[in-house]
Amino acid sequence: MTDFFAGIAPVRFDPTAPDDLSYRHYDPDRVVMGKRLEDHLRFSVAWWHSFAWPGGDPFGGQTFQRPWFDNTLDAARMKADAAFEMFDILGQPFFCFHDADIRPEGDSFAENTSNLNAMTDYIGTKMESSGTKLLWGTANLFSHRRYMAGAATNPDPDVFAFAAATVKTCIDATVKLGGQNYVLWGGREGYETLLNTDLARERQQAGRFLTMAVEYARKIGFEGTILIEPKPQEPTKHQYDYDVATVYGFLKDFGLENEVKVNIEQGHAILAGHSFEHELAMAASLGIFGSIDMNRNDYQSGWDTDQFPTNVPEIATAYYEVLRAGGFTTGGTNFDAKLRRQSLDPVDLIAGHVGAMDVCARGLIAAAAMLEDGALEAARTARYAGWDAKADLLVSDLATIAANVEKGGINPAPVSGRQERLENIVNRYV
Amino acid sequence: MTDFFAGIAPVRFDPTAPDDLSYRHYDPDRVVMGKRLEDHLRFSVAWWHSFAWPGGDPFGGQTFQRPWFDNTLDAARMKADAAFEMFDILGQPFFCFHDADIRPEGDSFAENTSNLNAMTDYIGTKMESSGTKLLWGTANLFSHRRYMAGAATNPDPDVFAFAAATVKTCIDATVKLGGQNYVLWGGREGYETLLNTDLARERQQAGRFLTMAVEYARKIGFEGTILIEPKPQEPTKHQYDYDVATVYGFLKDFGLENEVKVNIEQGHAILAGHSFEHELAMAASLGIFGSIDMNRNDYQSGWDTDQFPTNVPEIATAYYEVLRAGGFTTGGTNFDAKLRRQSLDPVDLIAGHVGAMDVCARGLIAAAAMLEDGALEAARTARYAGWDAKADLLVSDLATIAANVEKGGINPAPVSGRQERLENIVNRYV
Amino acid sequence: MTDFFAGIAPVRFDPTAPDDLSYRHYDPDRVVMGKRLEDHLRFSVAWWHSFAWPGGDPFGGQTFQRPWFDNTLDAARMKADAAFEMFDILGQPFFCFHDADIRPEGDSFAENTSNLNAMTDYIGTKMESSGTKLLWGTANLFSHRRYMAGAATNPDPDVFAFAAATVKTCIDATVKLGGQNYVLWGGREGYETLLNTDLARERQQAGRFLTMAVEYARKIGFEGTILIEPKPQEPTKHQYDYDVATVYGFLKDFGLENEVKVNIEQGHAILAGHSFEHELAMAASLGIFGSIDMNRNDYQSGWDTDQFPTNVPEIATAYYEVLRAGGFTTGGTNFDAKLRRQSLDPVDLIAGHVGAMDVCARGLIAAAAMLEDGALEAARTARYAGWDAKADLLVSDLATIAANVEKGGINPAPVSGRQERLENIVNRYV
Amino acid sequence: MTDFFAGIAPVRFDPTAPDDLSYRHYDPDRVVMGKRLEDHLRFSVAWWHSFAWPGGDPFGGQTFQRPWFDNTLDAARMKADAAFEMFDILGQPFFCFHDADIRPEGDSFAENTSNLNAMTDYIGTKMESSGTKLLWGTANLFSHRRYMAGAATNPDPDVFAFAAATVKTCIDATVKLGGQNYVLWGGREGYETLLNTDLARERQQAGRFLTMAVEYARKIGFEGTILIEPKPQEPTKHQYDYDVATVYGFLKDFGLENEVKVNIEQGHAILAGHSFEHELAMAASLGIFGSIDMNRNDYQSGWDTDQFPTNVPEIATAYYEVLRAGGFTTGGTNFDAKLRRQSLDPVDLIAGHVGAMDVCARGLIAAAAMLEDGALEAARTARYAGWDAKADLLVSDLATIAANVEKGGINPAPVSGRQERLENIVNRYV
Repeated sequence: MTDFFAGIAPVRFDPTAPDDLSYRHYDPDRVVMGKRLEDHLRFSVAWWHSFAWPGGDPFGGQTFQRPWFDNTLDAARMKADAAFEMFDILGQPFFCFHDADIRPEGDSFAENTSNLNAMTDYIGTKMESSGTKLLWGTANLFSHRRYMAGAATNPDPDVFAFAAATVKTCIDATVKLGGQNYVLWGGREGYETLLNTDLARERQQAGRFLTMAVEYARKIGFEGTILIEPKPQEPTKHQYDYDVATVYGFLKDFGLENEVKVNIEQGHAILAGHSFEHELAMAASLGIFGSIDMNRNDYQSGWDTDQFPTNVPEIATAYYEVLRAGGFTTGGTNFDAKLRRQSLDPVDLIAGHVGAMDVCARGLIAAAAMLEDGALEAARTARYAGWDAKADLLVSDLATIAANVEKGGINPAPVSGRQERLENIVNRYV
Repeated sequence: MTDFFAGIAPVRFDPTAPDDLSYRHYDPDRVVMGKRLEDHLRFSVAWWHSFAWPGGDPFGGQTFQRPWFDNTLDAARMKADAAFEMFDILGQPFFCFHDADIRPEGDSFAENTSNLNAMTDYIGTKMESSGTKLLWGTANLFSHRRYMAGAATNPDPDVFAFAAATVKTCIDATVKLGGQNYVLWGGREGYETLLNTDLARERQQAGRFLTMAVEYARKIGFEGTILIEPKPQEPTKHQYDYDVATVYGFLKDFGLENEVKVNIEQGHAILAGHSFEHELAMAASLGIFGSIDMNRNDYQSGWDTDQFPTNVPEIATAYYEVLRAGGFTTGGTNFDAKLRRQSLDPVDLIAGHVGAMDVCARGLIAAAAMLEDGALEAARTARYAGWDAKADLLVSDLATIAANVEKGGINPAPVSGRQERLENIVNRYV
Repeated sequence: MTDFFAGIAPVRFDPTAPDDLSYRHYDPDRVVMGKRLEDHLRFSVAWWHSFAWPGGDPFGGQTFQRPWFDNTLDAARMKADAAFEMFDILGQPFFCFHDADIRPEGDSFAENTSNLNAMTDYIGTKMESSGTKLLWGTANLFSHRRYMAGAATNPDPDVFAFAAATVKTCIDATVKLGGQNYVLWGGREGYETLLNTDLARERQQAGRFLTMAVEYARKIGFEGTILIEPKPQEPTKHQYDYDVATVYGFLKDFGLENEVKVNIEQGHAILAGHSFEHELAMAASLGIFGSIDMNRNDYQSGWDTDQFPTNVPEIATAYYEVLRAGGFTTGGTNFDAKLRRQSLDPVDLIAGHVGAMDVCARGLIAAAAMLEDGALEAARTARYAGWDAKADLLVSDLATIAANVEKGGINPAPVSGRQERLENIVNRYV
Repeated sequence: MTDFFAGIAPVRFDPTAPDDLSYRHYDPDRVVMGKRLEDHLRFSVAWWHSFAWPGGDPFGGQTFQRPWFDNTLDAARMKADAAFEMFDILGQPFFCFHDADIRPEGDSFAENTSNLNAMTDYIGTKMESSGTKLLWGTANLFSHRRYMAGAATNPDPDVFAFAAATVKTCIDATVKLGGQNYVLWGGREGYETLLNTDLARERQQAGRFLTMAVEYARKIGFEGTILIEPKPQEPTKHQYDYDVATVYGFLKDFGLENEVKVNIEQGHAILAGHSFEHELAMAASLGIFGSIDMNRNDYQSGWDTDQFPTNVPEIATAYYEVLRAGGFTTGGTNFDAKLRRQSLDPVDLIAGHVGAMDVCARGLIAAAAMLEDGALEAARTARYAGWDAKADLLVSDLATIAANVEKGGINPAPVSGRQERLENIVNRYV
């Protein structure tokens, strides 16, 4: 037991609570569209931002002073103790981690593996008593200087090998801890300058790397979902997993579109020039929707600010697409959000998550109500209703169509798109 | 004969010319890498910006007062006369057009077709005497209000049909005039709000539309290249042909990746968050590089400014990727660039093109020199040389690799990416 | 009487209304912080977007087909009739106009003036019977091609004179109609290229122009507020009235900081890289806050989309700054918002405004509640409380301070900025 | 003597050098517009990027392994030795530093001061033998966690005091080393959230802080220039010194517009939505141009990439504005540029600077030629020539002007802005 969160009681649902250390909206047992809110939202805490991030930015160093900031197994265990203390306070069902978040950094692959095993033993025991489950595990293939020029796409085959070996250990760790998904985030899989980059070769490396990861996971019996997390840039100038549509083309090319899905983050969507709901709807339309990283990026900032979500209408619009896609199966709502670096206190960490879970609950409840109301979907269906009688157009050919247009004097008159009225419908619920 | 360009002599190559109405760098007959500059660059003038655009912007109307600004066949013929007078002055080998650029707008499909035929007759005759050829034709499926909600992706099947019929007539016109490519730019194929949009359905419509266009073109014997021009947004909030990687995924999905290539525009690349050279290199690496629209967008402006190119180093970097991809086959350098709306005079139109052709010539000459020097390519090859001995990694599996990494104590040390030194090499040539 | 809005009844407050043609939140008579909502919000309809805009964008022409789209006095009167019919339906207290919105365009200054006078006579009569008042008038110094290179900052002194004369007539018209403010939006006061621009000279022209406008307005007894509307760019590459801070420096330079205030638009704030609330708070802190244009820009689009506002939390945050600044005096909430160009129907125009007024009402009510709650302001005050005892620092000097720091061993420890907890407070109210 | 740069010879001017370790364009003694290139360009190396930056980014840690990366006086001296070895190799006339770059970080203000004094002694001795001079000194008021909420604008007066005391020591150090300017970069003078920020109060603190710095510097006899470096954001969400126009308003407000000038960085200009040449021209037009940080930001990246400059046409356009403003007096060209974090080798550091100095030399030579040619300035003058006969407009009033416009039938016709032709002129020289 640490005393890091000393004096902070478990967070309970209390709609009239006077402070921000109760859930005012997130009642895990409330049933919406036939499912408990907890089972809809499937909240997950991210080990890295909450417990491993020191608070630095490009112009300043560490602001957080956590007692476990040391590169030893003892410190890693203290960090795990504090993490599970926070899980007990928040009561969220899941967490996520990179290998580098939970273990000390070793001097070799063997030492890393040994440290990882020691820590998954320790964490596994804590999971048993806590009941908190693993949403997904992943490998940090971007922080160490060996990865400065990429992992799978590195020009040095030894780095490719080191990364591949590391992914093996992380899949093993994820399976060992009962993880429901495995995520690949290719933060360094991209380039700084085209001048030294062979795009075609690096893409082949990435395709082969992913294929091997899928094959290995299936071979050892992993039944969860394998996810790619798109991001367009930062830290790289260009990242290969730019956005959902780009990832889809990549998966198609390597025959993996039925094996791999996407983990979509609001901040990454914005950096790619899209809205969060666009990326969600696009993934659903392509059949590769998997899970979400729920945070927000500051629209004014051109980098990944990873803030806790706050804007209920935006969150409702996002969950509307999640629900239209059928909701989460193995996926969930992972808070890939970090405290502002000036939010120094342990209570900030709790309050940040409580506020985020409440706005997500509000968003999902509103999204479900919109879906049950049916007005939006009815309008959408009506807009395309003309096709019901003319589906044969899609199996015709240009010459036939042209003849018919000319003969029939077809001269279509536009009809209102009604955007403002649809927005008014949304505002009934958010 | 019009007198629009009265007093402006044909532009000649003269490296010491005192004004900007001679080519100081573009000598069509200069041989670079075994080919004449004219055959490398394959310059093309865009009918729309040069002859059809009235100079409006969102806060102001027409500034240009061209004598042919009238919706009649006579005016369209006067416009064609002026166009060929400009082609005679510039001496560039190609031009491009949309149907709506060259014909008056009719009240029906039949009238549009009749107008188009009349004008292709007229232009065909002028091409014979002039020698100027057609780089590509295309259909304007975005200006008329019937297309406000898209053409192929419209919720109204009659609009789909009208658009399909129009594409047929434009392919016919392109073939009739000996066009070497046919381009589809889906400027309205996207959405304004997800709330009224069925992404999956619209994507199917787009896929079928493109397939029919390809089938029709091949059926009537068109041997040129069919091109899609990616753009992320504007006028739409989101366009389906977002960028090269997105188009590739789309082509793969509909089995068209060997049938259709891309026409890449610098301004569209920038709007999508990419550099021009990135999109060129990406297309080459995916095997779908076709042609380019050479203009520049103002990096400060978040919309498509379509300015004449001016920056030689950027142009050289772009042509470097073109040359690495083997240069143009049917494609070329189309100036999809419009005069600033304050550049009112006929001589501005000539000088804008002359300046652009000169900077392109400088760029291509520099790119060729860089390629012949070989230093950049040697450095690129050397950077990946480690893979020569370790290609078996790409046919291995994670467990084997992990065992080898552990056994071999593989612990790769990073090596310099040398970006600044490569940039220094470029600056020797630009 | 036109029949444009035939069948649409006046909009009433009805919190349980089943459709979007009632106010569900905007009860004009509801009292908040001691004032009626109508008097807080001071809603105004913009003549230009609602009645004059044809629905074009850079890639397409007119989509709206209004019966008054003709350049005659009769058409202008029909437009005014329809406008007041909409005002009667909405019941908002104010409207705004440019001269060019309400009068036909003449061939000369004299004709423009005559047309303007005829129309202000007509509109004045309608205002009397309707009770709708004029929030502000302004001059359109950007649409006509004579202004393509600016109005006050034009290199041609005749354009400066024409613009100055036009502003005189618009101030006259504003006074004649009892306008409470006069606005200058310098949409073309900027440049396309530095290469042909004399920044210092144009800035002097702009300063002198504004000074003359202030002097004239005061001389003829105008007691309202004179406002500048900042915008960073579009249609220009750079506009001199970039943002609030820039306008402040300009006003200081010409000694006008006590004579002129700012009209702040959300969309313009965003284009300048700021949040709306930032610009509002900045103006308040500089003592130049005046009025607002309430719309929203799409964060993904790099141009001015001028959409109706929809996001209640963002609107609440904006009105929070308005209320902290003391609320509006002569200013108000002008909907500088246009229908999407696909929203063709008259009812879209009504529903767009109704939805907007409702979200503004929700936002203002929430903002008032936050202010009355006091938690945010208490936290802000507490954060700076250390200064109460140390205000002498601000009248000290570096040498004394340095000596004290060294002697006192001053070594400050940072305290939490509590951003997430403050955001949680906001989310109690929105 | 370190052996860090072992084997790298002093860089000499050699236009036909076969590699990138000679100046091919920068001949310090070449006379342009009556002044030696060295005296025009006044190159300066930045201690922080070149010697103190470890190569981290938000997703990865240190990549550089410099032998002096230790927080001791011995290490600081080794760093200084290496720095002067690089200065000897490059032969540039100036360098710049923050206190934190050159001294170890102490545990108290007293220790920091003592360390700073020790290091300025050491560096002073090296300067004497080397001949390298100090362009400017500055204080790092942003890296240490005490500054996380700002320095001058901190809500804690003790931080204000600590920062003020630190600035005193840095002015002292700058004077001691003969610095020609003193710079204030307010990297943390801004906010993360308006919710906890009192804009008016923080602005007063900033104004008073700057005033005290100016007073102290003048009191101790500093005759150099005091500079503010504008930047809009990053690391903050909003920085008070947003851009040149904002800084001007701030200076006006505190009566410092004749005391303080600006140090303009290309990357910061871009982040603010401006071009570099815009900020230079704006500063010149306001009479506050001082010095430049010459680097480039990647236009695709929304953060400060601080790369070595490479694009000659852009650099030429920038120096054109510098020369139009009369050139540098105390200011200079400081390379606030860092190696890419993958550029690990000592030779990268040399080659990065050599390439940058060469492109700057090319840019300045081109700019001088453009200015001497006179064509651009002649066109600019001609464009405003109409004002020569009508300057009385600027001392008139609206009523008189309106009467004259009406009486004279003034109806100005627009003339071409000739942007493309001016761009053609530029391209003759770059």
